[in-house]
Amino acid sequence: MHPHRRYTLVASCPDRVGIVARVAGFIAEHQGWILETAHHADFDSERYFMRIEIKADSLPFHLAEFRERFAPIAGEFRMDWRISDSAVKKRVVVLVSKQEHCLYDLLARWQSKELDVEIPCVISNHRVLQGFVEWHGIPFHYVPVTANNKSKAFDEIGRIFEEVHSDVMVLARYMQILPPELCAAFTGRLINIHHSFLPSFVGAKPYHQAYQRGVKLIGATCHYVSAELDAGPIIEQDTVRIDHGDSVDDLVRYGKDIEKAVLARGLRYHVEDRVLLNGNRTVVFR
Amino acid sequence: MHPHRRYTLVASCPDRVGIVARVAGFIAEHQGWILETAHHADFDSERYFMRIEIKADSLPFHLAEFRERFAPIAGEFRMDWRISDSAVKKRVVVLVSKQEHCLYDLLARWQSKELDVEIPCVISNHRVLQGFVEWHGIPFHYVPVTANNKSKAFDEIGRIFEEVHSDVMVLARYMQILPPELCAAFTGRLINIHHSFLPSFVGAKPYHQAYQRGVKLIGATCHYVSAELDAGPIIEQDTVRIDHGDSVDDLVRYGKDIEKAVLARGLRYHVEDRVLLNGNRTVVFR
Amino acid sequence: MHPHRRYTLVASCPDRVGIVARVAGFIAEHQGWILETAHHADFDSERYFMRIEIKADSLPFHLAEFRERFAPIAGEFRMDWRISDSAVKKRVVVLVSKQEHCLYDLLARWQSKELDVEIPCVISNHRVLQGFVEWHGIPFHYVPVTANNKSKAFDEIGRIFEEVHSDVMVLARYMQILPPELCAAFTGRLINIHHSFLPSFVGAKPYHQAYQRGVKLIGATCHYVSAELDAGPIIEQDTVRIDHGDSVDDLVRYGKDIEKAVLARGLRYHVEDRVLLNGNRTVVFR
Amino acid sequence: MHPHRRYTLVASCPDRVGIVARVAGFIAEHQGWILETAHHADFDSERYFMRIEIKADSLPFHLAEFRERFAPIAGEFRMDWRISDSAVKKRVVVLVSKQEHCLYDLLARWQSKELDVEIPCVISNHRVLQGFVEWHGIPFHYVPVTANNKSKAFDEIGRIFEEVHSDVMVLARYMQILPPELCAAFTGRLINIHHSFLPSFVGAKPYHQAYQRGVKLIGATCHYVSAELDAGPIIEQDTVRIDHGDSVDDLVRYGKDIEKAVLARGLRYHVEDRVLLNGNRTVVFR
Repeated sequence: MHPHRRYTLVASCPDRVGIVARVAGFIAEHQGWILETAHHADFDSERYFMRIEIKADSLPFHLAEFRERFAPIAGEFRMDWRISDSAVKKRVVVLVSKQEHCLYDLLARWQSKELDVEIPCVISNHRVLQGFVEWHGIPFHYVPVTANNKSKAFDEIGRIFEEVHSDVMVLARYMQILPPELCAAFTGRLINIHHSFLPSFVGAKPYHQAYQRGVKLIGATCHYVSAELDAGPIIEQDTVRIDHGDSVDDLVRYGKDIEKAVLARGLRYHVEDRVLLNGNRTVVFR
Repeated sequence: MHPHRRYTLVASCPDRVGIVARVAGFIAEHQGWILETAHHADFDSERYFMRIEIKADSLPFHLAEFRERFAPIAGEFRMDWRISDSAVKKRVVVLVSKQEHCLYDLLARWQSKELDVEIPCVISNHRVLQGFVEWHGIPFHYVPVTANNKSKAFDEIGRIFEEVHSDVMVLARYMQILPPELCAAFTGRLINIHHSFLPSFVGAKPYHQAYQRGVKLIGATCHYVSAELDAGPIIEQDTVRIDHGDSVDDLVRYGKDIEKAVLARGLRYHVEDRVLLNGNRTVVFR
Repeated sequence: MHPHRRYTLVASCPDRVGIVARVAGFIAEHQGWILETAHHADFDSERYFMRIEIKADSLPFHLAEFRERFAPIAGEFRMDWRISDSAVKKRVVVLVSKQEHCLYDLLARWQSKELDVEIPCVISNHRVLQGFVEWHGIPFHYVPVTANNKSKAFDEIGRIFEEVHSDVMVLARYMQILPPELCAAFTGRLINIHHSFLPSFVGAKPYHQAYQRGVKLIGATCHYVSAELDAGPIIEQDTVRIDHGDSVDDLVRYGKDIEKAVLARGLRYHVEDRVLLNGNRTVVFR
Repeated sequence: MHPHRRYTLVASCPDRVGIVARVAGFIAEHQGWILETAHHADFDSERYFMRIEIKADSLPFHLAEFRERFAPIAGEFRMDWRISDSAVKKRVVVLVSKQEHCLYDLLARWQSKELDVEIPCVISNHRVLQGFVEWHGIPFHYVPVTANNKSKAFDEIGRIFEEVHSDVMVLARYMQILPPELCAAFTGRLINIHHSFLPSFVGAKPYHQAYQRGVKLIGATCHYVSAELDAGPIIEQDTVRIDHGDSVDDLVRYGKDIEKAVLARGLRYHVEDRVLLNGNRTVVFR
């Protein structure tokens, strides 16, 4: 990472000869200074993935013109692509329930600008973290979820998400399952932290499942939410060693530390445009 | 670890007041010098587990008399127990197929006495590693396994195992599934290395499964073999980071390194009497 | 860990026959229920270390009487010993400067009772974290430290520490070096987090030092403060992988995560009486 | 990694606009198919580093012609560069003393073609591993090193190294210090595994040093040999957790496992042309 204002171009397309040459040629032609590049050729899907950071002030034009001039190249190579400006912060809505560890962790990173985003609001089905959120000057929306109001509650959450023009919604140990319509409406923009090393221990009480199976490591998984529970594309994972002396409560305690770390890394990759979807798998240019 | 000849007492029993006092009292009464102790009270099973290393020459008697004198205490507390002598090396039969990485690793450790065991023989369903094994002065038994001779082949393996008075049989990437009768006959004495982080990716081609799911870490699991495939008590596990650039072949390559390490650790725990069964879970006094 | 109120007995003494028997015998004699035990015989110093957790309500007397009755045994074995009651929370004073990551992390753990301590106050040489601390209902003391007032400032800090009857003082990225007198006055009660894998990169700007040397992992070290800078007994350490693409700022960012984790683990070990000094080394019964 | 025969172009040069465009343009112009690319812009040294793998049969010419045609571009950008052909295996001379763990590990990888190199010979100052090496069909040179013959012995080693046209020499726990002349003659071609996490514990008996300091992790470092002991550019490192119960012998045992892993990874990076020198630091395109 470097302190310059930069444009980040992210693209994938069917693999063939000349992609790098064409894209790098376009940038060089306009005296664009490349700060960082990463490429990946996937032999299964036969697609090419790339991410290029360009020093913003090295180019003689801004994003709108970049988009216009680059469009023909993108068309020629049938690219899925986007470009973002580091001066425009990503907007992240955070969903929480009662557990505070992920929220404290995210707000500490936001406070110190390590996580350089805007948080337009926090939404929760409980009031317990309201004071903490509001002390930070962040609006808090209390949206209770009960057996009877689910559909209405999640409509409300979707409405808030759109109203604040958020780029991504983070489920920071939010203890409700999102309805399929919400998942479908915001594909690739909903990030969850699951408290197991997926695909082990899908669903409820993964630490209890891990304890019963007698595993020697536990884990956490940051993934995009899809309609099938805990089966979306994985962004980041990690594990930590436990032993026979650890109770389920100990597992929960150890687990919180990897949940925080894995969510923070996964979210950072996302907001820095380092994650590209490749079917149900991800390319993560760390 | 320490260089002294030592007796290792391993026991489990229903938890109650006074277990440590009674056992340590017995040892102290005979001037036994305790080198290392480990204890675990399991709140689920309400059992107490212990492992005590005693300096052999601090006691005025040998193992046979120890067993005789200790039996009444063990009876009083309803203990499952055993005691071993570090001067009597454990005997380990190794089963392999064609892959060499675990075998090279085990023989290097055996050669340097890091793994202080005897290897009475290696058994394989292929001849490819015969020369390497025999160069080390270890007998090699070729027992081919085909669709038609399975039952006979595994009878032969069981017979060899008993004939050489082996304590434990290690499946060092042995690519055959043991029949239930063999599993039942040698419960707690058959150790397998599975090339995934169980319970994820049970069965065949776990690295392909891991690749398809898009996980960000892969793992290996050392476990006791039971009749249900890849479901026995876990002794040791570990994981290693991979990324989108890694092909299935890369996963196989990374995986070999954790397979070797996890198998070597798990086997060492077993032969040093550090593993106690607690239902389908293990207590491992590292 | 388990939810019972418990007494934790911690002791070390010259190694000899019969220590466990005598101590466990004393506990059993009074029907004390042992929840957890750990022992270590150090072959260099020839000392024996132990930690025993006893269910409080299994004993027919309280701590004062325990101490009185146990004193003769401790005397006989020349023990350094202490016993604590889980119902009496340890008191932790936190020192900070401007960086918030360790403070947010500690307060989140304190808030959720994962770190089950009292924080009588936070002391800082800057006002920047005052609001955050006070929002949690914790008193904040602003004690500026300048080139001219050092001696007076640290006298004030020592005075506050004693006045609030604190057990331990944590330097949570406090950017001042404590004077030797303060270190001497509170030996074994001052815990620092150093942002390198000691003994590498002692002193100022360890991440810059690490960058210059081109290491492939960076680390953090939680240690007791002694008069010699960054040379006190180590409680806990960890490392994280970096690569050539990481700038010093990236190292700082990665480093914060291990600083938080290592400090939290080290502090927990300390307040749960899991750390015993063995010269300039530590025994940590995790 | 992928199974195709490939050319690997590795280059570094002063950073400026248009490097990628020019190089990728040259490749595309000749219909070269890029399999893998990695780039790094170093902001301190203001140099640009790149590594490009091209499918060999996609180009209409072979290496000699590639070199000739590419030379003007390299000259224009003042590049340090080289290109290699995956069909031409790198040649690795291995130096050992008495310890077998790294040698067994390297030969297992070589045997299975995981490490796809040629080993023209092994050189040792002891005869203990001769039989093992020769069983694999690899020539073994016994070059004893005594206080009096050092200069002659190392001349002999240098002579053998050149005579077998080796690309790289690996010190696989070779317990002798190379003389400065040898280091100077083969800069960037001598790879050592040091049994500590450098820069901690330089020189002799690092595990003893680690034990005395009471660290909670130990490590290993794979680095290029330079005239200053243990101070050359670091290629790869790793650490493993230890605790108070581990003796120096235990540290040695744990250490062997990371020595093997770190050396194998470092050597693989080197022979796959993934390592570029950047002053006393390295760029490692994993």
